[in-house]
Amino acid sequence: MEVFDTHIHSEGKSVEDLERMAEEGIKRAVTCAFYPIEPKFPETLIDLFRKLATFEIERGKSVGMELYPAIGIHPRCIPPKYERVVESLEEIECVAFGEIGLETASDLEIEVLKEQLKLAKRLDKPCIIHTPRRNKVEVTEKTLRILQEVGFPESLAVVDHATKDTAKMILNAGYYAGLTVQVGKLSAKEVYEIVSEFGFERFVLNSDTGFDKADMFATAKTVRFLEEKGIDKSDVERLAVKNALRLFKL
Amino acid sequence: MEVFDTHIHSEGKSVEDLERMAEEGIKRAVTCAFYPIEPKFPETLIDLFRKLATFEIERGKSVGMELYPAIGIHPRCIPPKYERVVESLEEIECVAFGEIGLETASDLEIEVLKEQLKLAKRLDKPCIIHTPRRNKVEVTEKTLRILQEVGFPESLAVVDHATKDTAKMILNAGYYAGLTVQVGKLSAKEVYEIVSEFGFERFVLNSDTGFDKADMFATAKTVRFLEEKGIDKSDVERLAVKNALRLFKL
Repeated sequence: MEVFDTHIHSEGKSVEDLERMAEEGIKRAVTCAFYPIEPKFPETLIDLFRKLATFEIERGKSVGMELYPAIGIHPRCIPPKYERVVESLEEIECVAFGEIGLETASDLEIEVLKEQLKLAKRLDKPCIIHTPRRNKVEVTEKTLRILQEVGFPESLAVVDHATKDTAKMILNAGYYAGLTVQVGKLSAKEVYEIVSEFGFERFVLNSDTGFDKADMFATAKTVRFLEEKGIDKSDVERLAVKNALRLFKL
Repeated sequence: MEVFDTHIHSEGKSVEDLERMAEEGIKRAVTCAFYPIEPKFPETLIDLFRKLATFEIERGKSVGMELYPAIGIHPRCIPPKYERVVESLEEIECVAFGEIGLETASDLEIEVLKEQLKLAKRLDKPCIIHTPRRNKVEVTEKTLRILQEVGFPESLAVVDHATKDTAKMILNAGYYAGLTVQVGKLSAKEVYEIVSEFGFERFVLNSDTGFDKADMFATAKTVRFLEEKGIDKSDVERLAVKNALRLFKL
């Protein structure tokens, strides 16, 4: 089955890796903006977005993977004068803002997230919203309050790296929940348990593969695991592809 | 035999690739600055250099590859206000400036190359100097004239992507010649022919592996090819490691 990996950092992968992923069925992926050190300058992120929207897309295409760029300021790489970066978001073609969100939930992070959400709301742009490993539940609650405060449309946000503990509150708030299959995040078995409990309607799947060592085939493996568990094909398809196409308006 | 790949772009490789390279014996490599689109801002390159000098080095270390950063403005990615980038070169730790050089040999490219060479000379810093595929002989001649004009020390420059046609003039000028083993550049057999003709003293080996599809093991394979051809171990070692250690003062 074809698989849509809704959150990768293609910049951390070689073109040979992208080709192997495509061969494993991962024919589409959203490649999210992230800068692996704290940038000193807002301009660095603007050029990064330009690179994602052109060079990275072409690199994917050359090996059979359709990459879609997501651009935005990750909470771990907020540059000085971040407002300049937010202004640039309107000018660069993308399928989503991402990954954005909270890491420590500092005042600055909250401000940067809100500014990006307000712009996304005005532009009707989907958002991929990171949640951290530390204080996952508390920061997810805070994130959902911010989404509510901004009046952000339910159909336009995925709250990502969800767990058994946070899936329910995300779904209750009406948003999509992103299931990240990766060492230190979810296993295929945990994905199975979560969708068995909460259904398939509002979940999307991703690997978050990028700069670190990770299983780049995690989404395809999870889909095969669900098939082996006897899950309905139509349900697996929703998780593997269809929900993502709807969320990102493709 | 351990191999030193004197010119890669580690940013285009995944950490798994770097690990596989190290397992093949490529335990050290110089990772050269390059931005795969034309940057709009000088700041982008300054942050790129910071990233090479910290994050990339750590990424290599985590999988057993010693990476050494080379920083500088490649002729295909000269930003506006490039002087700001040249100023930053003094502040960021690196083993070399690179890759720098000429692509079309435009006036701007020549100006940017000269500024970087002058600074390198003052700082006693080795330089990795790109030569293009198009008009290789002519642009290499021009590059050597510029080196002479600047009075650049012979022991501090490698003129890279040398061919049978350019090796002689590079060696005659006293500089190191870089042999890039890659599809579209040299084959292992051509390397064998070149060193058989000109000796081993002033050559270094590299793959230029990075953002594009390429054989990341090309240097290790070339070393094995030379061993199989019965070349003296001490000669192979010079090409594989020792000349590089001397050039980069390691």
